[in-house]
Amino acid sequence: MIEGFESFAERIIQQLELVLNQSDVPDPLLEAMRYGVLNGGKRIRPTLVYLSCDVLGTDLVLADKAACAIELVHAYSLIHDDLPAMDNDDFRRGKPTCHIKFDEATAILAGDALQTLAFEILAGETLLAADTRLSLISELARSAGASGMIAGQVIDLSAENELIDALGLENMHRRKTGDLISTCLKFGAIIAGADLQTREAMHQYGLALGLAFQIKDDILDVTGDEQTIGKPIGSDAGNEKSTFVSVHGLEEATCKLNQRLVEAKAALEPLGSRAKPLHKIADFIIRRNL
Amino acid sequence: MIEGFESFAERIIQQLELVLNQSDVPDPLLEAMRYGVLNGGKRIRPTLVYLSCDVLGTDLVLADKAACAIELVHAYSLIHDDLPAMDNDDFRRGKPTCHIKFDEATAILAGDALQTLAFEILAGETLLAADTRLSLISELARSAGASGMIAGQVIDLSAENELIDALGLENMHRRKTGDLISTCLKFGAIIAGADLQTREAMHQYGLALGLAFQIKDDILDVTGDEQTIGKPIGSDAGNEKSTFVSVHGLEEATCKLNQRLVEAKAALEPLGSRAKPLHKIADFIIRRNL
Repeated sequence: MIEGFESFAERIIQQLELVLNQSDVPDPLLEAMRYGVLNGGKRIRPTLVYLSCDVLGTDLVLADKAACAIELVHAYSLIHDDLPAMDNDDFRRGKPTCHIKFDEATAILAGDALQTLAFEILAGETLLAADTRLSLISELARSAGASGMIAGQVIDLSAENELIDALGLENMHRRKTGDLISTCLKFGAIIAGADLQTREAMHQYGLALGLAFQIKDDILDVTGDEQTIGKPIGSDAGNEKSTFVSVHGLEEATCKLNQRLVEAKAALEPLGSRAKPLHKIADFIIRRNL
Repeated sequence: MIEGFESFAERIIQQLELVLNQSDVPDPLLEAMRYGVLNGGKRIRPTLVYLSCDVLGTDLVLADKAACAIELVHAYSLIHDDLPAMDNDDFRRGKPTCHIKFDEATAILAGDALQTLAFEILAGETLLAADTRLSLISELARSAGASGMIAGQVIDLSAENELIDALGLENMHRRKTGDLISTCLKFGAIIAGADLQTREAMHQYGLALGLAFQIKDDILDVTGDEQTIGKPIGSDAGNEKSTFVSVHGLEEATCKLNQRLVEAKAALEPLGSRAKPLHKIADFIIRRNL
């Protein structure tokens, strides 16, 4: 949970419980889907969806399904990324990963089903106008798809055991993490029916925030506390993965993190004082210790 | 290709080429996506989408993206089903499966990306009204999701090495194959803006046809020609999978196949003489030898 934004995290957990209460799904599929989604985590993405709606003066009830959809896609991507053929991680947030708790086949299918469910709940959200729903679906598919998040994972895998340069690293993280985080902010703008300038401001803020988030992750992989993070410190370095720290060094990475924070805040200028909570959450993201 | 319906198969291949012509997708991801989709196959599902539109008097151009979306979802499900953790198949249609041709990680991600792309092209099909697009997305997500196709695969995997009864077998195939085939027919009715009676007729026809299709597959696994089918004969029996033939015997399975054909045709009565091509394709499906 994000300090100062706990109510959003509590709201999303309730909403995810509702969405994952499916009577017609056989076990262990449903159990694995629930395990992959309801296993903790900071809920940063849905928090950003709610917060962006709130900042733009829109009732949060309109954002519930959108916030769930983003978290379902995020959860599916983690389940698949953890698989033996991918990052081969046995633990996430201090608990066995989905394929360890269940088995590989169930984990693959649970991930598949969570992706499908994300689009299903967006399409069926009758509180939103048809055009709004379609915009959300298009935006999510773009940022989570073959030229967005999945492209990022492909580049990440191909970069294992080989060094990539600073530009390649940023391209990878922009797609793997930045795109989906930026989508959270755009979701708020779409649901609120915001004008183009506001949408673009949210988009730019989201991209900078997404990169800041990833740089911080890479820094925590070196400087963090194992118990707090719930995975071994130095696991990225151990996998010989290129990170912002391995490419730039710790000092330069920290400098880049601060640059991104400045960029993110600057992007919000068109919103004026309404943007305060978005400044606050950006500060949290670079100060966090897990 | 389906005899007498070759023009639909040619059309879908052209359309899939267009949809998979993506400049921003890194290799080998794009290559694996294309390999999984453009590797032959009978194109039964998109043919059914086109045919149902045609029968209901709708321009095929309105059905292009819907036909592609179904085939992308079908292709993604095959890529994932073939994985070592699932059915562990090295060959499909006489060619190496996606994870053999590329690697497991790429195959998993290509499947993921094909699913995303299916929803993306439906959401972006501006030739169709917003409500129509949402209906297609909801229908596809329902039939391909955790209570449909994916549920079928979960039941299938849990039924390996243990016998399931006739009812369980039918439930599995209704979800694993029948739901998506039925969706092809419903897609036609949705795009054509058909009345409820017609939609229901298409739905019932699709369910019966889907089961007939699966029974025929199980029969071909025992009686078919290895070279024609492109996979070893008896591979299902060898995997100790329950099939319509293993559960009912060959004679009874053939009898059930014919029953389903009768049911499928009977469901079409409300359509009158317009339904002729749908009778013809049902006949083809039970007479095919691959």
